[in-house]
Amino acid sequence: MSQPAPARPGQRLEDVDTPALIVDLPGFEKNQRTLFDLVKNRVRVRPHAKTHKCPEVARRQIAMGAVGMCCQKVSEAEAMVDGGIADVLVTNEIVGAGKIERLAALSRRAKVGVCVDNADNLRAIAATGAKLDIYIEIDVGMRRCGVAPGKPAVELAKQITSFKNLRFAGLQAYHGRAQHMRSMEERHAAIEAAAQHVQHTKRLLAQEGIACPVVTGAGSGTFMLELEAGAWDEIQPGSYAFMDADYAKNEWAAPLPRFEHALFVLTTVMSRPSPHVAIVDAGLKASSVDSGMPGVWQREGLRYTHASDEHGWVEGKDVPALGDKLLLVPGHCDPTINLYDWYVCVRAGRVEALWPITARGAVT
Amino acid sequence: MSQPAPARPGQRLEDVDTPALIVDLPGFEKNQRTLFDLVKNRVRVRPHAKTHKCPEVARRQIAMGAVGMCCQKVSEAEAMVDGGIADVLVTNEIVGAGKIERLAALSRRAKVGVCVDNADNLRAIAATGAKLDIYIEIDVGMRRCGVAPGKPAVELAKQITSFKNLRFAGLQAYHGRAQHMRSMEERHAAIEAAAQHVQHTKRLLAQEGIACPVVTGAGSGTFMLELEAGAWDEIQPGSYAFMDADYAKNEWAAPLPRFEHALFVLTTVMSRPSPHVAIVDAGLKASSVDSGMPGVWQREGLRYTHASDEHGWVEGKDVPALGDKLLLVPGHCDPTINLYDWYVCVRAGRVEALWPITARGAVT
Repeated sequence: MSQPAPARPGQRLEDVDTPALIVDLPGFEKNQRTLFDLVKNRVRVRPHAKTHKCPEVARRQIAMGAVGMCCQKVSEAEAMVDGGIADVLVTNEIVGAGKIERLAALSRRAKVGVCVDNADNLRAIAATGAKLDIYIEIDVGMRRCGVAPGKPAVELAKQITSFKNLRFAGLQAYHGRAQHMRSMEERHAAIEAAAQHVQHTKRLLAQEGIACPVVTGAGSGTFMLELEAGAWDEIQPGSYAFMDADYAKNEWAAPLPRFEHALFVLTTVMSRPSPHVAIVDAGLKASSVDSGMPGVWQREGLRYTHASDEHGWVEGKDVPALGDKLLLVPGHCDPTINLYDWYVCVRAGRVEALWPITARGAVT
Repeated sequence: MSQPAPARPGQRLEDVDTPALIVDLPGFEKNQRTLFDLVKNRVRVRPHAKTHKCPEVARRQIAMGAVGMCCQKVSEAEAMVDGGIADVLVTNEIVGAGKIERLAALSRRAKVGVCVDNADNLRAIAATGAKLDIYIEIDVGMRRCGVAPGKPAVELAKQITSFKNLRFAGLQAYHGRAQHMRSMEERHAAIEAAAQHVQHTKRLLAQEGIACPVVTGAGSGTFMLELEAGAWDEIQPGSYAFMDADYAKNEWAAPLPRFEHALFVLTTVMSRPSPHVAIVDAGLKASSVDSGMPGVWQREGLRYTHASDEHGWVEGKDVPALGDKLLLVPGHCDPTINLYDWYVCVRAGRVEALWPITARGAVT
């Protein structure tokens, strides 16, 4: 259920009740410019809404030049279309009668694409009669969904072209595992291998006379590598807008830009059990710990060492006093954002806006 | 933001869209009877709403004999009072002017208790003029919040009695670490040690002529040990209602009862990349992985091996087919419930009710 807005415009950051999800607007805007200035006209940008879950963010990405949004769930795509986004690609397989009906209904309100990796699923989607862009997901190293590159993809493409209501829109080729490989060298190698799979599949499609309009994929940890590999037409970065503590552990070097931390959890010291320990009011229901603990922002010598459901342990030599507030850098931005109903957007120490996270909890 | 109801009464379980948070009503009701039959008249029961976040569950606990609800956050307590619960204890320190004002406002609508471990915080609470029950939290092994047992608690109790609007209601003595110690022997030892701290503190309070009306604490992993130790008047179990995969790893033996798994995440196989791997549509935004992966319910030989944000890997010898549905047992019930807006309550394979999780996301 929705929680009431946790702050009001004009309020000072230090007066915002905690825990609260904070967007540093100058950092967010800088990240937007960094990405779009770098890739402008070289590749289409379709940012991933799975990260931000918020039409206010999506509209700002579209204004920068994004062609539309990626979504991971039909309900997420519905929230984006409800929020005014006219072009959504569900970068995922949609299985089950109810979901497919909702996808078909959505295609009457917006331009909708979806991925397939199975012929039965393709027939179920075709049977709705809905006009949809169909992307074949190929597994380029993620080892999750997707058909194998090459012939299996071509076989599926032939079947797509047999349905009048469906358009073969291209390939989804996302190497999720590569995003968090720490060294540039590992990521380079992974994306080079993925590019070979894409190029091989495109050649086979061309031999069959099947046009492949778009190859889409890539994330914040690799997108320039896909761009330089030359096999992708569209990139899907999500985390670039905010960054997180896990992405910060990557090596960042050319051709990838360094993004700013623009997302924080504001927290209050609620207990001081010892001179070296402060207990804060943000635990694992306030900052997801699936990819590690949050970082403590701009406080040398302090570490957030562990979390229980509603508490966090901040330890170090100069721990803050009872009632003091700290900014935490979430370990993983996507599932942390999914815990909140509102972004509290801050500029120069004041709340400027509150953005509702309307796709929060959109799991179906 | 709230998601629409994910099912409708009368629907068959296998037709519910996924992922969905399922309550097995017979299992839940059995857990209720198991707990309340066992402790009836021997100790007060104040279940923890941090687990369920839902007034519908709270009302059923009150109907069984619970004296009120525990909450971890003011916003959680507000949701319970909004849902008709007349007696709430915030088992936590409440720090910060805004939160303390809200706590004071709530005390005009319900009987409200709160914990303190700091004299400055106590004065800030007293200054509101609100009538509140004040519990002193003592650290009995959790090493989180709380003053040390013994003299520090007595000093704080004296100060409480100096404020006319505040009532010293007793001690909060919760050993959270003990809940997940795997062997009965370890848990016995931990609760025995905690009981010594409680008894010592009560003796010192009595020597000062300060009555200690209630000692409250204990969780689902130990509550019978606290009861038998004789130092507690009230227990605070939460997870007992549902259980989870992490609690299932504990040794369960007398005097503790064994609770049923009554909480599940229903998920669909959305891709079958190999004969031994099924990809399901419930990832870490559908089942919190902070305490480990979910279990696969009643499917021998299948394991949920890892999760990404929106996907899970189920591996084994006889993996289900595309479109098949599975029930997962969440690794940790509390943060999993906090991801959903609705419980889909099922009996005999049919949806019987939908319960709104009104305190979902109540972090402040």
